[in-house]
Amino acid sequence: MSFHQADHNLLMIPGSIEVSDKVLLANASPSLSHTHQPFIGIFQSVLQNLRKLLKSTNPNDQAYVLSGSGTLGWDIVASNLIQPNENALLLSTGFFSDSFADCLTTYGAKVDKLVAPLGGVVSYDLIEKQLASKNYKIITITHVDTSTAVVSNLEEISKVVKKVSPETLIIVDGVCSVAVEDIQFDNWGLDFVLTASQKAIGVPPGLCILFASERAVNTALNRSTSSTFFASLKRWHPIMQNYENNKPSYFATPSCQLINALNTSLNEILSKDLDQRFAKHISSSIFLKSSLKDLGLELVSKEKVGANGLTAAYFPKGIDGSLFLSSIYKKGIVLAGGIHKDIVGKYFRIGHMGVSVVERDDVELVLSAIKETLSELGYSK
Amino acid sequence: MSFHQADHNLLMIPGSIEVSDKVLLANASPSLSHTHQPFIGIFQSVLQNLRKLLKSTNPNDQAYVLSGSGTLGWDIVASNLIQPNENALLLSTGFFSDSFADCLTTYGAKVDKLVAPLGGVVSYDLIEKQLASKNYKIITITHVDTSTAVVSNLEEISKVVKKVSPETLIIVDGVCSVAVEDIQFDNWGLDFVLTASQKAIGVPPGLCILFASERAVNTALNRSTSSTFFASLKRWHPIMQNYENNKPSYFATPSCQLINALNTSLNEILSKDLDQRFAKHISSSIFLKSSLKDLGLELVSKEKVGANGLTAAYFPKGIDGSLFLSSIYKKGIVLAGGIHKDIVGKYFRIGHMGVSVVERDDVELVLSAIKETLSELGYSK
Repeated sequence: MSFHQADHNLLMIPGSIEVSDKVLLANASPSLSHTHQPFIGIFQSVLQNLRKLLKSTNPNDQAYVLSGSGTLGWDIVASNLIQPNENALLLSTGFFSDSFADCLTTYGAKVDKLVAPLGGVVSYDLIEKQLASKNYKIITITHVDTSTAVVSNLEEISKVVKKVSPETLIIVDGVCSVAVEDIQFDNWGLDFVLTASQKAIGVPPGLCILFASERAVNTALNRSTSSTFFASLKRWHPIMQNYENNKPSYFATPSCQLINALNTSLNEILSKDLDQRFAKHISSSIFLKSSLKDLGLELVSKEKVGANGLTAAYFPKGIDGSLFLSSIYKKGIVLAGGIHKDIVGKYFRIGHMGVSVVERDDVELVLSAIKETLSELGYSK
Repeated sequence: MSFHQADHNLLMIPGSIEVSDKVLLANASPSLSHTHQPFIGIFQSVLQNLRKLLKSTNPNDQAYVLSGSGTLGWDIVASNLIQPNENALLLSTGFFSDSFADCLTTYGAKVDKLVAPLGGVVSYDLIEKQLASKNYKIITITHVDTSTAVVSNLEEISKVVKKVSPETLIIVDGVCSVAVEDIQFDNWGLDFVLTASQKAIGVPPGLCILFASERAVNTALNRSTSSTFFASLKRWHPIMQNYENNKPSYFATPSCQLINALNTSLNEILSKDLDQRFAKHISSSIFLKSSLKDLGLELVSKEKVGANGLTAAYFPKGIDGSLFLSSIYKKGIVLAGGIHKDIVGKYFRIGHMGVSVVERDDVELVLSAIKETLSELGYSK
């Protein structure tokens, strides 16, 4: 059975991404009891496989899968890993970093922002200097900011943090990076990664997926008071431990079908070599970005910091952006407009993650549609 | 295409419930862009249809559909409709009422509980006396407590509130009642109903569904500070208004497939007369409850306060509860154990909502399995 052909526009936005037919079918599973097999075993497998996806080696790390959007992951950081009036250092590479700051502030954290130049990243020197200036409970890094298509170097940033402020918890917003960019959770000394199901993990939206280091777990469990109920890791921790040990558990009803879909997708991803998966995303991204540049388009992300699952490019001079996007839409392909406040209306975004890259030639379809549209609109380089 | 036959145990727990094939297929929709058609129109239809389901008449009422469990609805009440140190009066009819109290307390509300006798409801006299004793910002009613199968009379309780304390917001936990028990939102003067997708609404789990009166909306919008980010109605309000006006909007990515499934289910529910739907649940519930009593089983809920979508009954004397449930499980039917702390291990629960009641004879299948199992276990009345 194939769902993705008829009446369906090819979705090449930076999430939701295209989903495999098997995953869609898993999402149509008949009703499952959350406290019986086979669901318990399905959830166990998901929690175990998330360790593999993040190359986690410490058995005291813990994965959490909650019903919710990726945004809920910000609330979980803000209400479990930092207390009111404690300091957070936030590296801002675009719209999503800024929204994360709003969330932290809502819960009373004191947020210092280091803002990258548009399309770039924050320099290691600046990070080092700032970390040395006061005590930071957490540093937050938007691994890939979906508004600018900029990827931050987690490994190098982590080295700086370990050198200057080893007590600081390293928090990664991996919404647009997990399963497309390599993440070596324990090797790099990360403490918390949050993501969502509808990005490179290749599942419909609705799951908030979290991964915590042993010390992040302890920080959450040792809190004396909770500031939230549903978003409390203290409440979820025993639930996840039980499911991972193949035992039923209850705090709130999990999204059984979405978790079944996640299990299917993780099995698909992990049935092949992870590093080859990342390499394929890199080569596909290089091909698309260089092809766009050959057409005369300018990228939003600067050299060497372009994300591998997402490309943001300015509309060429003289081309009406809405007309450009709607012409491509008429060809059956959905691209996204830009949302960074400084350049909104001036650029567009292409998502290239998951099955579109690994199993299909969707990137080439996009490129053809862009070429055709530019020609229709009378553009020449 | 039919999903519900093979390899699938009939799910007769008080949620997740059985889901129609059409709804399951809608949950397998190919990826949808949350800011394009057809999704915008789908979400619009959902928000409009929720008004009909709750018989809402005031256009300034507002529905909200968020990614999350029903439990998230408690956080939303606790962080949007009451401030720290304000008073909440909570009517406790079981496990779920008590957990709601924990959530309210987490956010700083001062909670007074009126606890019903096991299997019963709180008397109107007690409610009236308590409401007169101090100012309550909210009163919370668990319409159907899933742990005891007790239904509270919203209409009568609301009359008491309007008489003694008309300023008090009336909050209804409708997780196990919406789409099975009649709710006349505006006629009865309710202010907030929260529910989840996997109960009588007949959709897989993962959506937190909320409905607010005009004054509840105003209470949420007029708050000067937010105590949560993802659970902030102030942030969600313009989003829902936009979608209901057929315009794209963004705060966090909605669960597109689940919302598509919800649209399908609401269309199925509303294509028939709502009152006939409620009547069918009543007659099916009466049939099951009286049949169980005829077998000599005692119900947990007292006379006249038994829920119409759920039955809780004690294991008969001499019957081992786990053996009873596992024997029924072996016949391909999943029932639920009890979770009320005073009688846990002594009773079981049957969910009878949605397609199992309206489209199928699942209740009779359950009854046959119970009879057969009791006979196998050597029970006679």
